[in-house]
Amino acid sequence: MPSISKKGALMPESPIRKLVPYAEAAKKSGKTVYHLNIGQPDIKSPVVAMDAVMVHSLKTLAYTQSEGSLEYRTKIANYYHQNDIYVDPSEIIVTTGGSEALYFAFGSIMDVDDEIIIPEPFYANYNGFSTASGVNVVPVISSIDDNFALPPIEEFEKLITPKTKAILICNPGNPTGYLYSKEELLKLKELILKHDLFLIADEVYREFVYDGNVHHSVLSIDGIEQNTIMIDSVSKRYSMCGARIGCLVTKNKEVIQTALKFAQARLSPPTFAQIASEAALRTPQSYFDEVKEEYLKRRNLLITELQKIEGVKVATPKGAFYCIVELPVEDTDDFAKWLLESFEIDNETVMVAPAAGFYSTPGSGKKEVRIAYVIQQEGLKKAVNIIKEGLKVYNG
Amino acid sequence: MPSISKKGALMPESPIRKLVPYAEAAKKSGKTVYHLNIGQPDIKSPVVAMDAVMVHSLKTLAYTQSEGSLEYRTKIANYYHQNDIYVDPSEIIVTTGGSEALYFAFGSIMDVDDEIIIPEPFYANYNGFSTASGVNVVPVISSIDDNFALPPIEEFEKLITPKTKAILICNPGNPTGYLYSKEELLKLKELILKHDLFLIADEVYREFVYDGNVHHSVLSIDGIEQNTIMIDSVSKRYSMCGARIGCLVTKNKEVIQTALKFAQARLSPPTFAQIASEAALRTPQSYFDEVKEEYLKRRNLLITELQKIEGVKVATPKGAFYCIVELPVEDTDDFAKWLLESFEIDNETVMVAPAAGFYSTPGSGKKEVRIAYVIQQEGLKKAVNIIKEGLKVYNG
Repeated sequence: MPSISKKGALMPESPIRKLVPYAEAAKKSGKTVYHLNIGQPDIKSPVVAMDAVMVHSLKTLAYTQSEGSLEYRTKIANYYHQNDIYVDPSEIIVTTGGSEALYFAFGSIMDVDDEIIIPEPFYANYNGFSTASGVNVVPVISSIDDNFALPPIEEFEKLITPKTKAILICNPGNPTGYLYSKEELLKLKELILKHDLFLIADEVYREFVYDGNVHHSVLSIDGIEQNTIMIDSVSKRYSMCGARIGCLVTKNKEVIQTALKFAQARLSPPTFAQIASEAALRTPQSYFDEVKEEYLKRRNLLITELQKIEGVKVATPKGAFYCIVELPVEDTDDFAKWLLESFEIDNETVMVAPAAGFYSTPGSGKKEVRIAYVIQQEGLKKAVNIIKEGLKVYNG
Repeated sequence: MPSISKKGALMPESPIRKLVPYAEAAKKSGKTVYHLNIGQPDIKSPVVAMDAVMVHSLKTLAYTQSEGSLEYRTKIANYYHQNDIYVDPSEIIVTTGGSEALYFAFGSIMDVDDEIIIPEPFYANYNGFSTASGVNVVPVISSIDDNFALPPIEEFEKLITPKTKAILICNPGNPTGYLYSKEELLKLKELILKHDLFLIADEVYREFVYDGNVHHSVLSIDGIEQNTIMIDSVSKRYSMCGARIGCLVTKNKEVIQTALKFAQARLSPPTFAQIASEAALRTPQSYFDEVKEEYLKRRNLLITELQKIEGVKVATPKGAFYCIVELPVEDTDDFAKWLLESFEIDNETVMVAPAAGFYSTPGSGKKEVRIAYVIQQEGLKKAVNIIKEGLKVYNG
């Protein structure tokens, strides 16, 4: 029997997946499970987007342009202009989700054994894309004690080798909820210019910024136009995770031309999803206001309730809809499993994502979990109470 | 300015793309261009599939399962049963087009510098997936003189090295239209068992088989269950190229588990497209009968008309909707460009795909073009006449 690839053997399993059988068993036994573990919001997608697909007039579901239609890219560019990001449609490639945009970016700028520095904890699938591309992730550690702010630039510099090709940030961050300041981005600017690196910024949570903070795109920083690649997606913005439409944006023409070759090899992004995504650009501001208001209420409730629990440390998220929480346990993998298997209040329990999967440094994050505030406030309150009471029982 | 990757620089441009600017210029100058160059059929998609999307009742466009929903995979398995392919839903991973299925297959079984043997000419994007995966394509030459039949097994054996991991066939073939016989597949069976290789079969044209021939899937060959990976797609079957839904099918559990990790990293295939593809499985047989009848008429017309041209050699396709044609010119790249730039009959001209892009052996296929019979018979007849008259003028 022929064997699988080394790369395939190394591909990480989703850190959320590991607990799925336990959640399924809990449900089978009649328990309600509050899912704080996933980035799938319960928020409704914009009606204008969902309706656009219902009135499609296609007779043949044909390929679109590999880079996405000029019309759609023009509209995306216009959306960026409204967000103080000045790009041309030719600087955009429409992709099958932000995932594919990352894959194109990695392939366009890195070869096997090249290195990418990523502040950790980070979105777990960055590990998967790196392994699939044969690229090594070099983590630079950010800490819950300063809210997961940008690590000191000296820490980055210590890690730079001739193999280092890029730095990757997620802003606002999944799983941290951290929002990088303009000053932090300017520090990164100096660093990447000094070492001639690419800076990839995953900005899919751009709209979800709280407390009057402002999001700064890497594309709005002058002087690093040739170094920056921005990753975007409709998944979170419009609660359209299942569309699988994202884009790669860069002013570096060589990168665009290279990414386009990857795009051509896979022919085109999905057509129906592009119809929905193009229509989604007509979503009224009131939609975002309401959604943001809802997330803000959830965040405030979540943080307030978590802070009431003894021994719990929580980094207050400034953006996105996640937070990293340190629990008074030695191994959140075990605690998360225990919650599903052995604990309930009124026949209800909780699924959280153990944070070790968001670190690549072995042994890190073992006391932390990621909580996604993607469920309604009532459920969220009950869920935090289950964690609180669960901790008491678990810790004897 | 940081530089792009070596891999990115090596990524091939689509062989069809190179001529696009000439086609655009021709259209701008007022000419009608018959597109015989692309695999985008003019055939309508099944109404049942297009309607299913119009009546969707989703409020939130959520992620689906990474491997596709159990319901959809169960229905796909049922479709396979009807085609004498006995697989279980757990042996199927739903992908974003056949393209992604190939990418998952390559990643699951091959590492950088591994080798894959492919009978050439072959679907040009196999080069792109190989380059993206760092895998080397080793072509084994098939010839227009015997209709692009399977090359002798000795020719394969000469090419096998310790780096060889797989053989890839497209059956029926793009760009050749060749349909492998059961005997040929049995020869491949012996070869892959002897050398412990994987056999990947791209069977997306399964339905398009003419002259009473029968398609044999690699999954229907006993004794190589652990060696075979089948690639499929709804693109051609239902003329739904823009859906971007395909699948990877294998009875090798290790491969499925590995491919699943690649699938998890990119989250899920597109939701709307899965709705359309699931509904497409209810397409009545009359749809396929009509479509096949239409393609058969086109093929017969095309071959008959081409054979009337002096100096033209054509391999009669037994399946799919392409054929490779040898023209009495030295360089079809130049001839194809010339047709678009400098030739017309009644202000109409033709775009063909120079076949060099379907070969990886340098200098091969320079006298050949690929013709896709994806336009109506009237246009097809005119297009062949343009080639005929064009050849006279071009050859002085």
